[in-house]
Amino acid sequence: MRNGSAGSVCLLWALTLLVAVPVQALAADPLRSWNDGPVKQSIIDFVTRSTTEGSPGFIPPEERIATFDNDGTLWQEQPVVQGAFLKEQVKALVKEDASLALKQPFKAVLEGDLALLSTMDEPELMALFAATHKGKTQEEFAAEARTFFKTARHPKFGVPYTQLAYAPMLELLQYLRAHGFQTWISSGGGTDFMRVISEDTYGIPPQQVIGSDLKEHFDDQGGHPVLRREAKVDHINDKAGKPVGIGQHIGRRPVFAAGNVRSGGDIQMLQYTKEQPRAGFTLLINHDDAQREFAYQEKNDASLKAARAGGWTVVSMRQDWKRIFPEGR
Amino acid sequence: MRNGSAGSVCLLWALTLLVAVPVQALAADPLRSWNDGPVKQSIIDFVTRSTTEGSPGFIPPEERIATFDNDGTLWQEQPVVQGAFLKEQVKALVKEDASLALKQPFKAVLEGDLALLSTMDEPELMALFAATHKGKTQEEFAAEARTFFKTARHPKFGVPYTQLAYAPMLELLQYLRAHGFQTWISSGGGTDFMRVISEDTYGIPPQQVIGSDLKEHFDDQGGHPVLRREAKVDHINDKAGKPVGIGQHIGRRPVFAAGNVRSGGDIQMLQYTKEQPRAGFTLLINHDDAQREFAYQEKNDASLKAARAGGWTVVSMRQDWKRIFPEGR
Repeated sequence: MRNGSAGSVCLLWALTLLVAVPVQALAADPLRSWNDGPVKQSIIDFVTRSTTEGSPGFIPPEERIATFDNDGTLWQEQPVVQGAFLKEQVKALVKEDASLALKQPFKAVLEGDLALLSTMDEPELMALFAATHKGKTQEEFAAEARTFFKTARHPKFGVPYTQLAYAPMLELLQYLRAHGFQTWISSGGGTDFMRVISEDTYGIPPQQVIGSDLKEHFDDQGGHPVLRREAKVDHINDKAGKPVGIGQHIGRRPVFAAGNVRSGGDIQMLQYTKEQPRAGFTLLINHDDAQREFAYQEKNDASLKAARAGGWTVVSMRQDWKRIFPEGR
Repeated sequence: MRNGSAGSVCLLWALTLLVAVPVQALAADPLRSWNDGPVKQSIIDFVTRSTTEGSPGFIPPEERIATFDNDGTLWQEQPVVQGAFLKEQVKALVKEDASLALKQPFKAVLEGDLALLSTMDEPELMALFAATHKGKTQEEFAAEARTFFKTARHPKFGVPYTQLAYAPMLELLQYLRAHGFQTWISSGGGTDFMRVISEDTYGIPPQQVIGSDLKEHFDDQGGHPVLRREAKVDHINDKAGKPVGIGQHIGRRPVFAAGNVRSGGDIQMLQYTKEQPRAGFTLLINHDDAQREFAYQEKNDASLKAARAGGWTVVSMRQDWKRIFPEGR
């Protein structure tokens, strides 16, 4: 009886150890997918000093706002996910009216494949969204987007797009939240598109997603009121539009912002975050990992130049990230 | 020694009781400024069933969004506070250029006194805001608004405007938050004006304030980037604009909304909240208390008619509120 009891305690203890290992590893290293080095250290230093009372860098909890670009910063952008969604939408339109396949911009979308979509600039993409969204209610659009996320697969990795969020960035989001930061998305993508997956993928609720918007109007619909999308762009949340979107939705400057090299779309958000009395923390991700993800540059190198001028922290995916995607994906 | 120890325990117990009394009172009646009756009971019933797991009315925490109009719902609106602020701004402009006092709309603002301002419709007010805001940075505007709130006094009550928030509504905000609801302002007033006082007055952070907006643009300002206000209206958060603002900022329907009788400005927000699969809770405040606050009606009675048609809960300030303003104000 005594021995049996001791044996049970031992077994329990052994089980506890097994369970405890990952928890301990997490506590010891909240950024375990980041390689040790100056980039990882600078993040830890910032969070430590901004949450240590009495530290000159202390930031009161209500001011701990962190904003993240989405495409290329939180998840992969080859292809841009909303571009892939758009192609599916156009295919569905063509099924109903075959003549559309010969008309622009639908023709270009269908023929141009994902590579062309990736090179489209924001206004072109938004014009297309307008053509595909007009008159739809919020609920109808969200249902379409949900179906896409369930059924679509990435052409290279063969998995749902939501599984291609970056492991190091998911850890960073959690690490910041664990230290009282409120995490936001500020992306050029469509607000309502991202809102469908932001909570489950990133732990970011819909009300903390800022993106590009079409105009909407209230429609009473005989006593069952809805919001309907119009074929008019309301806000482009890219480049100089990002600080504007942040001003509208948050009403104060972030103290932490992250973006990536590709189109220069995050420069102003990072400048707006860096240049303030207390100097915010600014992170710029460089896609230089052809083997594990993709390697691509920016035409005029504006983002990296701005990073050097502004003293931003530049992430080399190849050097600074131990893994790109979550394990066991 | 034994006795001494027992005495200490008794003293500790007595102290605990003393401290515990107000806490118990709070726990017993979180809505102590509301008179007992069907209105108060309907609020308590809604919160109880929406937070009781297994109840057919249970609402998951992430969907517990509550939106509140501000003027006339959370604080007094005779005069509309932002109207009083506007008058101070115009006075300051006239000090710099006396000829403005003879020009419209400045002349009307100065001569028309608060009564006229109160009757101005939203677009007129916004046009005036544009004239008084253009080119100002977010920080400059916020500083002006803060000065106003420090120095201005209500013409009837003689206290700062922030002391004229309604005690029953402050309790309701706290009660909802204590049950996992996220409380938002959705008001026709200027977003940035309300954001200056929302946290201290209501416990609502700036990022949970939705209001009317002027367009803003990003200005690099030689490496010290700011947002500047333009003389163009971006969004009027009134009537059918309220559900649109809620869609943009929150991205899901509130399950609780409160507005008031005066201009019909809250009808669509309340309809949008009420009409959904789970039927939201909708509160409409009627100002019928000339003695303790003000008594006023709506020209066409549209809000009260909509309340009857939609089954909203109507608050009579005279009958349902034990006190209007916080004690010891």
